[in-house]
Parts: sequence; structure tokens; C-alpha cells
Amino acid sequence: MTRREMVAGAAAVSAMTSAAQAQGAVQKFARFRAGGRVAYGLVTGETITEFDGNLFGARKSNGKSHKLSAVELLYPVEPSKVLALARNYRSHLTSGKTAAPEPKRPEFFYKPLTCLQHPGKPIVLPKDSTDVHFECELVVVIGKRAQNVTKAAAASHVFGITAGNDVSERQWQGGQDKDIQWWRAKGSDTFGPLGPFVVTGLDYSKLTIQTRLNGKVMQKDSTGMLIFDVPSMISFASQYVTLEPGDIIYTGTPGKTTAMKNGDVVEVELEGVGILKNPVKSA
Amino acid sequence: MTRREMVAGAAAVSAMTSAAQAQGAVQKFARFRAGGRVAYGLVTGETITEFDGNLFGARKSNGKSHKLSAVELLYPVEPSKVLALARNYRSHLTSGKTAAPEPKRPEFFYKPLTCLQHPGKPIVLPKDSTDVHFECELVVVIGKRAQNVTKAAAASHVFGITAGNDVSERQWQGGQDKDIQWWRAKGSDTFGPLGPFVVTGLDYSKLTIQTRLNGKVMQKDSTGMLIFDVPSMISFASQYVTLEPGDIIYTGTPGKTTAMKNGDVVEVELEGVGILKNPVKSA
Repeated sequence: MTRREMVAGAAAVSAMTSAAQAQGAVQKFARFRAGGRVAYGLVTGETITEFDGNLFGARKSNGKSHKLSAVELLYPVEPSKVLALARNYRSHLTSGKTAAPEPKRPEFFYKPLTCLQHPGKPIVLPKDSTDVHFECELVVVIGKRAQNVTKAAAASHVFGITAGNDVSERQWQGGQDKDIQWWRAKGSDTFGPLGPFVVTGLDYSKLTIQTRLNGKVMQKDSTGMLIFDVPSMISFASQYVTLEPGDIIYTGTPGKTTAMKNGDVVEVELEGVGILKNPVKSA
Repeated sequence: MTRREMVAGAAAVSAMTSAAQAQGAVQKFARFRAGGRVAYGLVTGETITEFDGNLFGARKSNGKSHKLSAVELLYPVEPSKVLALARNYRSHLTSGKTAAPEPKRPEFFYKPLTCLQHPGKPIVLPKDSTDVHFECELVVVIGKRAQNVTKAAAASHVFGITAGNDVSERQWQGGQDKDIQWWRAKGSDTFGPLGPFVVTGLDYSKLTIQTRLNGKVMQKDSTGMLIFDVPSMISFASQYVTLEPGDIIYTGTPGKTTAMKNGDVVEVELEGVGILKNPVKSA
């Protein structure tokens, strides 16, 4: 995160002041390491106010606070599972060599916990990979167990949102000698950058999302263009697979993606959440 | 578990007596609920000797013990992820309408934690499912973090084994209107029965594995017939995806599987581990 971003964040957050504790107010949370300890905290401006436990407890300050610039930000939530959606923006369906059909229902897959990567930490290209792409995504964080929930009730199961990069090896995913399932195409270590913050109380139905590769904009769209919106995907998933507090859903990527190489820097920016920046390096 | 099994288990375990603590001895572990608490324990005959923490700690008795018949057995390990293999027995490749090609490499997929089911608890058929099959499998429990391990070193990363039923909805998996990935075909709630015990120190390279549906043998093979053996699959996975202690791998199913219906009882029996028995019911 740049200094300018932090200042902008400070202005935005200070505008809420005491209203921040109110139901539905926009709040920004971080998970971080400071002095050898890992903790969660509420981010206001350039300060993190630490609390004990995780995002889903009382979130009462434990009296400790930190300069945002003095801590190491970690991926901001610890899920028990990671779901992700394929083919969820029309702009992405036509981005490949052959157009993909529009999905009839939300098309999920899983990413393993071990692929999650912290803001600022490298995306490592596996040694026999040849075609590793970025994918900017809105990521939803579940706050309340969801089992057989209706579309109308689904939004109440969302805790907040963050940003993610659904890193994908395209040959393993869909090449001539592709794997049967996407276990390593989407699940290799470091293929799930996430963060930097979880933001609550934000209307996530029309946020700008983009990827910059070495500073150049490569993907840019609005979350309003999701084929299956957040309530639809949660409701559908929950008919089969129970979603637990902390579970996350990468909601799909727009437009066209390209391969990354050793030395690149990739930034996913989600309006209201911030910039998830990761260097790319060879194994 | 039947009384006869318990007696047989008691005889087998009593044969080890004091040698049971020695490196490499066959030991049987359970996770269970008793008196509203969940704990792990060492099973000897009809007794569970409880210890604090999980399978990967000191495993020193905390002084409490229980009659095996008096506790509720739970799936015996709490993984951070669940891998599974497709097409890993030749006898299964030819079991469908069209023969599946032999895999060039281990073909993994993920099952979510929420699909794990306890011994004795129901496999629930999702309301719009039509073709839910059993799949008996040897399940490997990782004991030591595995990242880029060689095939020669892989066996030392195994803690022990258990039995699993990789329940699969065949229409969602491979039907005309199949999903893109197997997220619900293999991952719906209750689609991962596991247990009843984790057994260590056992040579798992030639164990008999079988499924009985309402008492009738439906699948029966030897784990010696795995196309990719346990060290090969661990080594390959670990080149891409780090395996953590407690992570489990369903190693694939042999032969032909069939659909289950409300009221059925399915038993997966793995030699040396025991019988994983689950009733089947409609949602």
C-alpha cells in the first residue's frame, strides 16, 4: 500500500468517526503480524486498533494499537474453505481463443487454504508452469453459517468483502494436456493472494475492479457486471455445501487475462477495499 | 462397529501390549464425543485412553478413559484440506459407459471440509440429486508438512490411514448437463464419510478394501492395485500444493459403483482399519 493510499484511507475513515460502531457502517479490518504476534484489528486512518479473537467475535479493543505502516499485513481472514466462480462475467467468456458458453448456474470450484498469499508477498511460478495468469476478483467473506438460504436472505450472511487474485495456470486448466480438475491450475501455493483489508458495510454491487501489471491496466470492470450476483451465488452454493463464518468466495474475473513472468508486479484494486499488490517470481 | 469387530480389535491390539508405544507399532486412534466433550484417544480393545490435544501432539494420556461402546465416534482427524484422486484403479477406468483413459499423472481434486461425515451418521441425498454413488477408498493422513518431497521421502510424511467413502453425484460430475468442476458432485454436505479409526504403523500397500450396500459386496479390490501409489501421489501433489499435518488424501476407488437410495446402508471396510458404516437418507 502506498502512502497516498493510506492518506486517502485516513480521510475516508475519519469521515465516519463515532458512527463507525453503528450497524451497517463502513469498517475496515486487517489481520497482521507485529512484534512476532498475529492479531486482528480495526483500521482507522493510519492506525490499527487491535482486538482479541477473530473477526467474528466481540471485536472489543484490547488496548493495543499500531501504526499501519509498522505492521506486516496478512491475508485478512482465515477461512475453513475457499470457493471460487468460473465464467461469471460476460466480458471474460469471450476472452479466450474460443468463446465459453454462458453458465446456466453458478459454476464453483475450490481453492485450497495453502494457496492463500499475503499482500506484498510473491506469487511463485511453479517450476514446470508456462502460462500463469492474474485474475482480479471481488471476494466475499461469509459472516454467518449459510445452509439452504434463499436469495432474499443471502446478503445477511455476508460479513464483508475483500480483494483477491485468482491466479491460474492456463495450460493445466484448459490446455491440450490439461488436468481433469483444476487442483493445481487454481490451487498451487501462492495462487490465492487476498486482501489487504476486509471491508464491511459497503454496497458491493457496483464497485470498480481492476488489475494493473507493472502499472498498466489489464482488466477493468464493475462488480455490477457479475452474471450471478453475490446473493444468487451464496443461495445456490448453500443448497449443497454449507458455508461457515470466515469462508470466502472469489466471485469471478472480468475481461482478458495474460501471463505473468518473473519480476512482474501485479496489483488488484477493488474500489473501497484498496490495492492488493504482489511481486511475481520464479520458483 | 459390531461387537465381533470390537472383540477382534481387542485381540489384535492386546497382542502388541507394551510394544504399542514403540516406533512403527500398529496403533489405532479415535476422535470422539463423550459427555459433551470432543477428544482424541488411543484405542486398545474396547477402551479409549484419552489424551489432550490432537493426533500430532505428545499424545500423553490425560488420565481419562472410556468404553468404546459408550462414546460417539467422530470422523477421526480434522484436516485443513481434503484431496482426492480420480481414476486411480484400472478396474474403475472401465466401469463406466465409456472407458476412461489411464491417467498420465495423479489427477487430484478437492473435497470441502463441510462434506466430512462421522461414522454411523447419514449420507444425505441432496434434494435435486438423482444419481449418488458410493466409492470405497483408502484415505491417507499426512503427519508432517510435505512441500516438494521426493517419492523416496514421501512415506515418512504419512501419519496413518483411515477409510473413506468418496460419495459422488454422477450427473453433476459427468452427465449431459454436468457442472464445470466437481464442487457439489464430490463436495455436497455429508459426501465425505471418514473413519472410524486412524491406524498407524500398518503396511497399507496391499490391504483389501470393499463396499457393501445393504450387506451385498459391491466393490472389492486391493490397495496394491492403485495406479499411483501413496508415495507417488504425495510427492506429485507436494510439488504444487503444500500438504499440512492432518490433511487427508482419498486415494481413489476401484471397480464399479452404483446409486444409493433412501433407506440404504453402505459400509466401506478397509482391512486393518475397520468398517465405516453410514445410512443413506433423502434430504
